[in-house]
Amino acid sequence: LADIFDAHDAHDALCGAVPGGTIRMADYMGSDRAIIEAARQSTGGTARGWGTPESPSGDDRLLRHLLRSRHTGPFEFCEAVFEVRAPIFVARQWMRHRTQSYAEASGRYTGDMVLQPPTRTGPEGEVAPRDWAWVPPLDRFLGDPETKNKQARAAAAPNPGTVRDCQTIVENAYTEAWCAYQELVDRGVPLEVARTVLPVGTFTKFRAKANLHNWLKWLSLRNEGHAQREIRAYAVAVEDLLRRKFPRTIRTARDLGLIGSVGGE
Amino acid sequence: LADIFDAHDAHDALCGAVPGGTIRMADYMGSDRAIIEAARQSTGGTARGWGTPESPSGDDRLLRHLLRSRHTGPFEFCEAVFEVRAPIFVARQWMRHRTQSYAEASGRYTGDMVLQPPTRTGPEGEVAPRDWAWVPPLDRFLGDPETKNKQARAAAAPNPGTVRDCQTIVENAYTEAWCAYQELVDRGVPLEVARTVLPVGTFTKFRAKANLHNWLKWLSLRNEGHAQREIRAYAVAVEDLLRRKFPRTIRTARDLGLIGSVGGE
Amino acid sequence: LADIFDAHDAHDALCGAVPGGTIRMADYMGSDRAIIEAARQSTGGTARGWGTPESPSGDDRLLRHLLRSRHTGPFEFCEAVFEVRAPIFVARQWMRHRTQSYAEASGRYTGDMVLQPPTRTGPEGEVAPRDWAWVPPLDRFLGDPETKNKQARAAAAPNPGTVRDCQTIVENAYTEAWCAYQELVDRGVPLEVARTVLPVGTFTKFRAKANLHNWLKWLSLRNEGHAQREIRAYAVAVEDLLRRKFPRTIRTARDLGLIGSVGGE
Amino acid sequence: LADIFDAHDAHDALCGAVPGGTIRMADYMGSDRAIIEAARQSTGGTARGWGTPESPSGDDRLLRHLLRSRHTGPFEFCEAVFEVRAPIFVARQWMRHRTQSYAEASGRYTGDMVLQPPTRTGPEGEVAPRDWAWVPPLDRFLGDPETKNKQARAAAAPNPGTVRDCQTIVENAYTEAWCAYQELVDRGVPLEVARTVLPVGTFTKFRAKANLHNWLKWLSLRNEGHAQREIRAYAVAVEDLLRRKFPRTIRTARDLGLIGSVGGE
Repeated sequence: LADIFDAHDAHDALCGAVPGGTIRMADYMGSDRAIIEAARQSTGGTARGWGTPESPSGDDRLLRHLLRSRHTGPFEFCEAVFEVRAPIFVARQWMRHRTQSYAEASGRYTGDMVLQPPTRTGPEGEVAPRDWAWVPPLDRFLGDPETKNKQARAAAAPNPGTVRDCQTIVENAYTEAWCAYQELVDRGVPLEVARTVLPVGTFTKFRAKANLHNWLKWLSLRNEGHAQREIRAYAVAVEDLLRRKFPRTIRTARDLGLIGSVGGE
Repeated sequence: LADIFDAHDAHDALCGAVPGGTIRMADYMGSDRAIIEAARQSTGGTARGWGTPESPSGDDRLLRHLLRSRHTGPFEFCEAVFEVRAPIFVARQWMRHRTQSYAEASGRYTGDMVLQPPTRTGPEGEVAPRDWAWVPPLDRFLGDPETKNKQARAAAAPNPGTVRDCQTIVENAYTEAWCAYQELVDRGVPLEVARTVLPVGTFTKFRAKANLHNWLKWLSLRNEGHAQREIRAYAVAVEDLLRRKFPRTIRTARDLGLIGSVGGE
Repeated sequence: LADIFDAHDAHDALCGAVPGGTIRMADYMGSDRAIIEAARQSTGGTARGWGTPESPSGDDRLLRHLLRSRHTGPFEFCEAVFEVRAPIFVARQWMRHRTQSYAEASGRYTGDMVLQPPTRTGPEGEVAPRDWAWVPPLDRFLGDPETKNKQARAAAAPNPGTVRDCQTIVENAYTEAWCAYQELVDRGVPLEVARTVLPVGTFTKFRAKANLHNWLKWLSLRNEGHAQREIRAYAVAVEDLLRRKFPRTIRTARDLGLIGSVGGE
Repeated sequence: LADIFDAHDAHDALCGAVPGGTIRMADYMGSDRAIIEAARQSTGGTARGWGTPESPSGDDRLLRHLLRSRHTGPFEFCEAVFEVRAPIFVARQWMRHRTQSYAEASGRYTGDMVLQPPTRTGPEGEVAPRDWAWVPPLDRFLGDPETKNKQARAAAAPNPGTVRDCQTIVENAYTEAWCAYQELVDRGVPLEVARTVLPVGTFTKFRAKANLHNWLKWLSLRNEGHAQREIRAYAVAVEDLLRRKFPRTIRTARDLGLIGSVGGE
């Protein structure tokens, strides 16, 4: 698929919250026009062409009507597949959505293959924690100022002068876990047992596929102020990538407030 | 619900593989008879009564026919809800099934509440690793002799004399992770960030609900030789609990080989 | 199930719009309390008791919060099964909902069994059209004054003096279809072929089962001014029956406007 | 989509059983190769290339293994959309499958638009029954010699000399229904009420979309000896159309007997 793009912008947005996380669109089906065609099926009609912002056409108005009235059927005729590298705790939140198809790397089989860092960034080329797990950015220890979720704010936030210590605690814990894992594997313990010591911040890789109706629903829950900041960063990227293939749908959904606002908006 | 039972036998079976794991049936709907009634809906009939093993009735034969011909509809009219305490890696395998409803304790909110051990079993009443996480039984480090899954067998199994060392590696890794988590929480780091260091062996609690058709399908995949031993232990318990409420269905499904065999069977 | 009631009131409401249509609750699982328990699973808590309208308790407020915030998960832990007699065109609208389980009488097998009238009401005890099919009430030919759906209003409504003629046209068409069907069956034509002449107003019988979340969603679409008047009559009955088992949930959902209003409300 | 083909062969096969029925593939996503890529996600690998029948490659063997072991996940990453013209009774059987997305012409809105014949074939250019409804072919009145379904065979089949009479009974019943419908519409009765007299043999148009796993499951139930002959004709066409886009998958599924056999095979 020559026209499937790398998500440079989305990737940049992601990197601030989840250094080492990645996302790209791996496949898609349909278009804004395909939605109109599916909707017009009920009256035996077809797409008639788009208007302009100043002079919207019947198709523009139909698209707006479908979204506002939650006529979700026509959006089911479009699909998008994403390939994602994310911490296990993000994957757990993501996979609670039962309307997607998933293919995930298995910690039972792949071992080093999942954990294999894209680059070994330690001083001697060895594995550093950030190569295989999510190391929270410094400001993350202070809570999430954008969240609507009271629990996600730090009740008694750490002294800003000590956030570096917090990050070191995480990195040391990761290193301990990694060493225990390697020692178990080296002794011949099956991967599916050895992995029990790996932290939920460990990166995993998976594909997630849904139709556009379900991506919109997912965005309304995940690109939203109650969602944890890390999955919200993926949701920002998903919206950005969907916008390139379904620009009118995503723009209209946002106009109508169907995609949740981030933070205090 | 007075007649909802504790799963003593199932619990015992579970404890061998997952010490600290629990499961109980929290609710259910329907019966073997309700399946027959739903099936007879297609011809306007109703249940006519069960026969004996020696002299099966029309209802017996219909139940067998439905299962053998994969007429799954009538089994959708029965439901069962289980309440489960299981390691996160088991919960992840379980929740890949998209036909169940889930309600799970959230590590973003509950923190100690999830981790709270049923009993503090350390010498001074402190928290021991086995109070909040899955400590693999000694023989588990040697692989899984029952599995059909080559990767799950230890390629070069540890020397049996050293399995105690392996268990100690796991316990120490758990203790390190626990201390890092507590230190982060004590400094005021939000729970949703602090938990990133917790291992995938940490216990979580959830409810899982499905209709009987989907439980049978789940059993065919999870009470089966390729499934990881730990989730298989839960599947054995689920089958045992379902058998008490839907005895004819479970017995017939097993007769017909629809529920996967464990290990080399 | 001794406490499963006949839906006398609901049946009466139904009879005005769909004479000959019936609905009853055949089974259910859960309660308002079970919803609270499932919701509190995420924080490790349980139900604490209901308050009064004047002095709502924490459980009251939680129920309201769940509905308003579309936290649908906890409502999935309740179920209800309905047994329905409805025209085929209503069954077709109903079964477009893919989140329900269905068991339907089959026109391939049952033939007369489906069509068998509860009573033969013709002068000689023969079958009258209203015994096996939906005969629209007289005012129905004038359109639907309650609808929000422009197409469902009669563009140029019949002269009220001629609605009796319209009804006679329908009854005669039904009688012609019935005679053709019987003649084909009498000649030995398979039921699955003979039925091709039966009108979409023919009654069918089916069971429909869904969890409470999906019943609420169904009500929001079917007990609503754009839905066809006939399925709306069933939706009124479903809401009435659900209210008896889940009174707080249905009342709160209606308070919050989550269940669509009928007609011009 | 330039390469979406008309289903000439499939159409021919269909015409024998359902004169006037049509089917075409309207869109699709993925390929045999995409299935391998999704499957290899679990081990971090990718597609390696196909072999030949004489010398199957690892990808060939993996595809076979996935189908035989019912590892259905990877097939969910492919999609196909069909546009169908079929009698209402076929649409009802089809739409019982809850894993597809549907967009259907609505008899509430379109009226003549749905019923509009592709050509008016009566002697004076008027509408003939076969223009808007399924007229069973002559041999169909004798039952279905290919069926495994006892009820679908005519118990006491009509005398072959009288099948023409049977066909005339159907055509006359259709004409009566059509006239009643037109008279009601002419008097201003809303379309949603007038249609109640139309037979279940009336043609409707819809789009149906599913992923490849669910199409395979649909084929196993519908391209099978117990399915009614008319929907089986559509299933033959669906298999034919899918084979052009996913040739290895369809061929292997048939080799393994996963797609049901027609008739006595």
